[in-house]
Amino acid sequence: MVPYKQVIVVRTDIEMSRGKLAAQVAHAAVTALEETRRRRPDWVQQWFEEGQKKVVLQCRDLQELLQLYEKAKSLGLPAVLVEDAGRTELPPGTVTCLGIGPAPEELVNRVTGHLKLLR
Amino acid sequence: MVPYKQVIVVRTDIEMSRGKLAAQVAHAAVTALEETRRRRPDWVQQWFEEGQKKVVLQCRDLQELLQLYEKAKSLGLPAVLVEDAGRTELPPGTVTCLGIGPAPEELVNRVTGHLKLLR
Repeated sequence: MVPYKQVIVVRTDIEMSRGKLAAQVAHAAVTALEETRRRRPDWVQQWFEEGQKKVVLQCRDLQELLQLYEKAKSLGLPAVLVEDAGRTELPPGTVTCLGIGPAPEELVNRVTGHLKLLR
Repeated sequence: MVPYKQVIVVRTDIEMSRGKLAAQVAHAAVTALEETRRRRPDWVQQWFEEGQKKVVLQCRDLQELLQLYEKAKSLGLPAVLVEDAGRTELPPGTVTCLGIGPAPEELVNRVTGHLKLLR
């Protein structure tokens, strides 16, 4: 069985409370899931059967986040950028994170394999 | 139109890194979404149409989390508890958070209206 995972990458150059950060990551997880469900429902089903592995990684800044997004798209991976609505801590439209998949682990690693876990 | 929201409640009496916390909250968001989709697909659709509002709240400890879970269930709300697999920071089976809905805001507030935002 191919292992599947979903990855969420967070910018570390903007200040967010833990609650804001968690809400943005959850938003990315749900939105990437729905995008994958539309395009690869078989991946979604496999991922749920395997226990929905999720990994939260960090990147430097917006530029790096956008490069990762383009790389994911170029490999045919379902990928979404999350913008904060900006009602509270951040300016409206601030891109906070990137959600990829769920997708085959090997394919996702080609995009995010070099990134560190968010601590 | 009835406003809908999803709420995730996090225990604040256990230590988690920001990445671990965000992954647990995302897990709760996805699992509660799937539970709601099975039982109230109309709520899920409305919530997506409204922009999938998510709120991350805090509670004291496991006992309070379980009480909130029972309260949600008694009101007929889709609710899920999330356990950490315990491969890294926490003992296996540690209950970290509670996901509710998406569901009508007024109904969710009867369970979590008194809780503070996670900061």
